Amino acid sequence: MKPISLKNVKINDSFWSKYEELVHSAIIPYQYNALSDNIEGAIPSYAIANFKIAAKMQKGEFGGMVFQDSDLAKWIEALAYMLQTNPDDKWEAIGDEVIAAIENAQQEDGYLNTYFILKEPDKKWTNLHECHELYCAGHMMEAAVAYYNATGKRKLLDVMCKVADHIDSIIGPEEGKIKGYPGHQEIELALVKLYETTKNEKYLTLAKYFIDERGKKPYFFDLEWEKREDKEHFGAMRSYGDKYNQSHLPVREQKTAEGHSVRAVYMYSGMADLARETNDKGLYEACKSLWDNIVSKRMYITGSIGSERHGEAFTLDYDLPNDTVYGETCAAIGLIFFAHRMLQIEAKGNYADIMEKVLYNGAISGMSLDGKSFFYVNPLEVWPEACEKNHTRGHVKVERQKWFGCACCPPNLSRLLASLGEYIYGTNDDTIFTHLYVGGKAETKIKGAKIELIQKTNYPWCGDIEIDIKTECQDEFTIALRIPEWCDDYEIQVNGENITPEKMIGGYAYIKRTWDNGDKINLKMNMEVKRIVSNPKVRENIGKVALQRGPIVYCLEEADNGTNLHQIMLPKDSELIVEFDNDLLGGINIIEANAIRVSDDEWEDTLYKSNTQIKTSSCKVRFIPYYSWANRGAGELITWIREK
Amino acid sequence: MKPISLKNVKINDSFWSKYEELVHSAIIPYQYNALSDNIEGAIPSYAIANFKIAAKMQKGEFGGMVFQDSDLAKWIEALAYMLQTNPDDKWEAIGDEVIAAIENAQQEDGYLNTYFILKEPDKKWTNLHECHELYCAGHMMEAAVAYYNATGKRKLLDVMCKVADHIDSIIGPEEGKIKGYPGHQEIELALVKLYETTKNEKYLTLAKYFIDERGKKPYFFDLEWEKREDKEHFGAMRSYGDKYNQSHLPVREQKTAEGHSVRAVYMYSGMADLARETNDKGLYEACKSLWDNIVSKRMYITGSIGSERHGEAFTLDYDLPNDTVYGETCAAIGLIFFAHRMLQIEAKGNYADIMEKVLYNGAISGMSLDGKSFFYVNPLEVWPEACEKNHTRGHVKVERQKWFGCACCPPNLSRLLASLGEYIYGTNDDTIFTHLYVGGKAETKIKGAKIELIQKTNYPWCGDIEIDIKTECQDEFTIALRIPEWCDDYEIQVNGENITPEKMIGGYAYIKRTWDNGDKINLKMNMEVKRIVSNPKVRENIGKVALQRGPIVYCLEEADNGTNLHQIMLPKDSELIVEFDNDLLGGINIIEANAIRVSDDEWEDTLYKSNTQIKTSSCKVRFIPYYSWANRGAGELITWIREK
Repeated sequence: MKPISLKNVKINDSFWSKYEELVHSAIIPYQYNALSDNIEGAIPSYAIANFKIAAKMQKGEFGGMVFQDSDLAKWIEALAYMLQTNPDDKWEAIGDEVIAAIENAQQEDGYLNTYFILKEPDKKWTNLHECHELYCAGHMMEAAVAYYNATGKRKLLDVMCKVADHIDSIIGPEEGKIKGYPGHQEIELALVKLYETTKNEKYLTLAKYFIDERGKKPYFFDLEWEKREDKEHFGAMRSYGDKYNQSHLPVREQKTAEGHSVRAVYMYSGMADLARETNDKGLYEACKSLWDNIVSKRMYITGSIGSERHGEAFTLDYDLPNDTVYGETCAAIGLIFFAHRMLQIEAKGNYADIMEKVLYNGAISGMSLDGKSFFYVNPLEVWPEACEKNHTRGHVKVERQKWFGCACCPPNLSRLLASLGEYIYGTNDDTIFTHLYVGGKAETKIKGAKIELIQKTNYPWCGDIEIDIKTECQDEFTIALRIPEWCDDYEIQVNGENITPEKMIGGYAYIKRTWDNGDKINLKMNMEVKRIVSNPKVRENIGKVALQRGPIVYCLEEADNGTNLHQIMLPKDSELIVEFDNDLLGGINIIEANAIRVSDDEWEDTLYKSNTQIKTSSCKVRFIPYYSWANRGAGELITWIREK
Repeated sequence: MKPISLKNVKINDSFWSKYEELVHSAIIPYQYNALSDNIEGAIPSYAIANFKIAAKMQKGEFGGMVFQDSDLAKWIEALAYMLQTNPDDKWEAIGDEVIAAIENAQQEDGYLNTYFILKEPDKKWTNLHECHELYCAGHMMEAAVAYYNATGKRKLLDVMCKVADHIDSIIGPEEGKIKGYPGHQEIELALVKLYETTKNEKYLTLAKYFIDERGKKPYFFDLEWEKREDKEHFGAMRSYGDKYNQSHLPVREQKTAEGHSVRAVYMYSGMADLARETNDKGLYEACKSLWDNIVSKRMYITGSIGSERHGEAFTLDYDLPNDTVYGETCAAIGLIFFAHRMLQIEAKGNYADIMEKVLYNGAISGMSLDGKSFFYVNPLEVWPEACEKNHTRGHVKVERQKWFGCACCPPNLSRLLASLGEYIYGTNDDTIFTHLYVGGKAETKIKGAKIELIQKTNYPWCGDIEIDIKTECQDEFTIALRIPEWCDDYEIQVNGENITPEKMIGGYAYIKRTWDNGDKINLKMNMEVKRIVSNPKVRENIGKVALQRGPIVYCLEEADNGTNLHQIMLPKDSELIVEFDNDLLGGINIIEANAIRVSDDEWEDTLYKSNTQIKTSSCKVRFIPYYSWANRGAGELITWIREK
């Protein structure tokens, strides 16, 4: 299966169009200002300045982290996606200008990394473990491919092919080359993109080398460290161990998701790409084991991953603390990448279900509704005063930040949102798959004939989807509609008549017929509120329930429900009333319910009481979509509510 | 009120005698071996070697931490207490020998700290913030007082008076002296002891100076740091801020317990000492505020304090996580010190209640039943695999350790246990108070006449106390029996007749009469199992119950109840059956009950389910005393159980 590409999907959706509009009107401009160090009160980025200095277009010193180049790369990638859906001469000119600086910064031999060019020119390729040269190159390759696809301009693509050629001359199995791999995976999936765009097999081979070399003994990062005479860039990296960057075992032997969660899912995405491109079944099996481990044992209900701050890492099965969680926005996005790639290999609804879950919850929670502030960490439970005073929760910010010293998440979100169109549909020889329900128009070809699908929906607030089909051909083909895991009850009509799908496999309803121009599919999914419980092995959630309606996970916030949210209990039989509030948080379905609140009224200064009756009172509670929390100032949050 | 001193109390008790015996047979010898670096597999201490090297009695280099001297000091103090209750020529000779080395290590001007003598002789008194010179001196002063009281030998006392005189010549309000105070409080209470023993008011004045100077602006530790030209010993200390060592405000303005919990309670103990000795009502009020804040908002049910690892510190009101807790053994012991001192100022049962609570729970939990291994951190909830794999819990050891690089806790416990006799009784002009119920004999004088109390009890397993009175006088005096906070129902008999106490104030039943030789008091306290609930503001414990019987807090351990202890629920009406098991964990009352266990049988690899019925089954659970956990190998622990 292949996605219907971004160029061929036009989003026109009550939920997502405003994000697309935000990308254009706010996010791309805001982040350009951030990258240009033009936002008052925000931590400076230095990213554009670094390239201009390296290009000798301005004077100055390198600023920021060793991986600073990647922030600009992700922004260019996001800009490119935006230019595909919203052509804009002004922004394309800015993109061209930035790319010119990048081209000028590139060195004769193809080397391109502003940190090393400006700060440590004699230390290139000596610290793959810590110094992100391959990571930054990977992100810029993704940007190059996207910009080429959007504009047809080859400049950045040529620059990055030259970078890739240079890397290939430095690292690899051949005599005299470094036998290494990146400390932060990313370039693997980028090289596959570069291969797909240029058809140069060298890039695929290099990606495969990075994947296959990883985790071999003797441990490359130790050898490298010894050769470097123990010099370290960050200092603590070695203490994190080899699981941190998934080099503890050859990737095919890895069965559980370990270590830094962003590194992990980027690598798994690259593995899935290679498995698909090279038809490597063993590699796909490895991907499936890792996928299963994540989604069945190590993923929050919001799709967030990474249970601890130390190493921003996975921890162990069923360890999903809601308050000390990491849940990095980038990791959520990376899980979407992984899911989307797995879906190309096998049309299993579970891949799309998780992709949807992450998208509507743990990914977009990373950004404020105005697109101008961001979470790095996405907690499911917040007690603001404790975040301030107990360092165990010190990494949990209670309000989104304007920018970060390590600003990986904001441009990552923008490239995801700008490319959302690409995640909606997939096609193979004779089938069009609908993975996501997003209003708009998509064009593709089946058996050489042009097909247009026009999707109309008020998703995720309503489960009714209409798909109008325009087709030139009269040939038989299949439309496979994903029936989400959350949906127990649905019906499908074609031209107003209920139909039974040809087959129902892996969460997709396959409707095979000879489609006429003007045919109309109506998918009516019953979208009731679900009470979700966790596997009883999850300690943090035992006795608790979370509400989900459609793909949207709900939460309780202080702004609606006061403080001490842990004192609220939701009775098992409490009616859950859904209402659309157009004026709240950009227009959302809220859920209201009668609940019970434990009272601390008669406790005064007592900390412990014996044989006492806990006093309770009834109360009303209002749930809002998890992604929309923290848009009304700092306050408490809970996602899992005690059930009475 | 004054305690009946250790010399006059002879413990003969079914619970505590074995601890006293352990001190003699195991703890003092074991710790001497540890301090002499003679325990295989244990982290070396270097403490005795350091003194011998400083004394030029052997060759070598300083080893261990900057505060290593204090470990030996606490051991000598414990030894001294042991010699009072169990005279032992062999161990007194060893004590004398160690003290001889200490005397030889002292420098001409009175200076005594092996770290600075051996490693940085030109840096003395330049880093009060980090380098523990005053802390080590304080501990050795306590040892000196105890050794003098035990043996009548003045050598160490003279050494430490010379140290105190030297400190007084270096630090103080006078022109040319350092206007500083300790980075780790301890010397304040030690100087009060030195004053009480020597009657030299200079020591009391110096203690008062340290207390009063603390928290003034400009901030001494900043000035000192600037003078030192930014050189730091540990590196991170300044980043902990001024709350860490309670110098954020003048002590009289401090209302909440903040920062490093051991520093805090040592300081509060010193404040209480000074308030008592100088009749400083303002200082006592400050102590009361801090006391109230701890016991009503920041103390675990086990009496442990310190809610977070970072800074080993208090955090905020009602923040009492059971799994990421610090709960250092030393902090529990320090809280006993504070409680005991507050009790001398005012006979309030709450002080003794807390003293008892800490003693029977969060303090002795710090040591294995054989006296040979120790907890630094005392968690209330443990998931062993998570302690290993989630760094948020990385400080929580699931098994007690043989020794520590920073080995403050083991000798601290030994000095507490060795001096337990001193905590049992108090007297003032006409009243004898029984604070703790511990079998044995105590002698005191009231109005010049000798009184002997012989206490017989099977406490804490039974609430029946018999006190036989032997008296020479026929004068009227009062015996005040503490009626513990956990006891709702009791009766008091004198010579077999029920009596109503003269008065019942602050948790003490005052029995005033003309006592005859041979009179007998029987206090019969109903010791039923209590279901304790936390203030509903405590997030971790909502919906949960802990069991307590008498002063003993109970817990569930994996050894008795399998894994996934969080899946157990205790029904509200479940009968709680108490049974003494002589063969288990040194002889304990266990509590057995029918409970309910949530089943994860039908979940397999599902992480979240919607609208599902949680399956449960009935089970039997066995609770053991919290202090006795982790004596049967590594396993899960919970103290707060979900109530059904």
